[in-house]
Amino acid sequence: MAKLEPYERALSYSYCLGAFPCLQLLAARPETARRLLLHPEGLESEGVALLREKCAALGVREETAERVIRRESKKGNCFAALVFDKYEATLDARASHVVLNEISDAGNLGTALRSCLGLGIRDVAVIRPCVDIFEPHAVRGSMGAIFSMNVRAFDSFEEYRALFPERRLYPFMLKGSTELDAAAAAREEPFTLVFGNEGRGLPDRFAEMGTPVRIPMSGEIDSYNLAISVAIGVYQFTRR
Amino acid sequence: MAKLEPYERALSYSYCLGAFPCLQLLAARPETARRLLLHPEGLESEGVALLREKCAALGVREETAERVIRRESKKGNCFAALVFDKYEATLDARASHVVLNEISDAGNLGTALRSCLGLGIRDVAVIRPCVDIFEPHAVRGSMGAIFSMNVRAFDSFEEYRALFPERRLYPFMLKGSTELDAAAAAREEPFTLVFGNEGRGLPDRFAEMGTPVRIPMSGEIDSYNLAISVAIGVYQFTRR
Repeated sequence: MAKLEPYERALSYSYCLGAFPCLQLLAARPETARRLLLHPEGLESEGVALLREKCAALGVREETAERVIRRESKKGNCFAALVFDKYEATLDARASHVVLNEISDAGNLGTALRSCLGLGIRDVAVIRPCVDIFEPHAVRGSMGAIFSMNVRAFDSFEEYRALFPERRLYPFMLKGSTELDAAAAAREEPFTLVFGNEGRGLPDRFAEMGTPVRIPMSGEIDSYNLAISVAIGVYQFTRR
Repeated sequence: MAKLEPYERALSYSYCLGAFPCLQLLAARPETARRLLLHPEGLESEGVALLREKCAALGVREETAERVIRRESKKGNCFAALVFDKYEATLDARASHVVLNEISDAGNLGTALRSCLGLGIRDVAVIRPCVDIFEPHAVRGSMGAIFSMNVRAFDSFEEYRALFPERRLYPFMLKGSTELDAAAAAREEPFTLVFGNEGRGLPDRFAEMGTPVRIPMSGEIDSYNLAISVAIGVYQFTRR
């Protein structure tokens, strides 16, 4: 690998931006790290020092790449990045899952992943067409949580379903027939919680699958933000 | 008002961007609407047609202002905006509140407000230094929920507390002594839930006030996103 290309979906590698997400990457998926990129202004930071130490121990070579960091991070305030190989994760058949159907916003994906990991859900399927899971903004939004998880893209919901045909599905829908608390209290594990696209939600056909769940909502808003719905839903379904 | 200035905190007016948030504004605070700004490419949209109709009925004058809309919305995909007068809201002393201490991100504020309104909390205090509540990005992030709520900025937490000295406080802290579910089950109403800054959380002194609450979190992330914490906390505290 010579020149570092502007990020795009077709590349075999991506950029993990920021010292904290990079440390998460090295802890969880060290074998994917290729090169450490440093911004000359960040060399004094504690996080960057720790990162250099860990990269040296792993044999990941470092280089100054101010321009690449600035280009990929867009906003400033980013002083280190790892170039990493994309990889394909496998979902755990015994664990509960979250499915994000046609999620389109990288920030929402990152925030949802971070919440899921915090609440103990490590296995997340995303259904195409959807945002690229390795887009730098998604990786950064997850604060590196993605590396400690199994996140995998599928071409269709049916492709996901064929691999995990037995488990109970809980599609989250504005008109779901069962209120969240009741659905969570009666949950069958392992479960799969399914969330729709930011603007469109889930197609009606999901109402025929499993137990459609409704998050209580006053009549004064028309929907919750997707990452908020995921967090509220996962919180309830993972309570003891 | 002649020329429309680039938005800044010191202005007496702000911009509400997008047809849906504008309709919320007209429903909740019609007296603040000054001018309707239209983008020539948006005239075919149903939302814009409805907005023009309502503005005509209210006597709010319309004008084409492509350049102002583009400047204030930054990303495209915005075809209408309302110029509105800033106003000062008063919190309801009988209602439960959310306090956002030194919140710094406009997107987080908007998302948190929208979640609060959806979950039935209409009264929100923000404590300075903090993001400007009328910044167009915050208003848009709330999807106009802010207009149906009482959102007020205070110079200090003590200034807020002096107005509402009796109610029980529930500061959300990473090391809070009471787990969320237990705190919510034993809640005293009306309550005030207090959340800290995105990076720093709440100062330690808040642990001495009321019942410090901890949202359960796996050791694999270091915190939840602020808007996520607010949504999970408010959801639990507003359950029947």
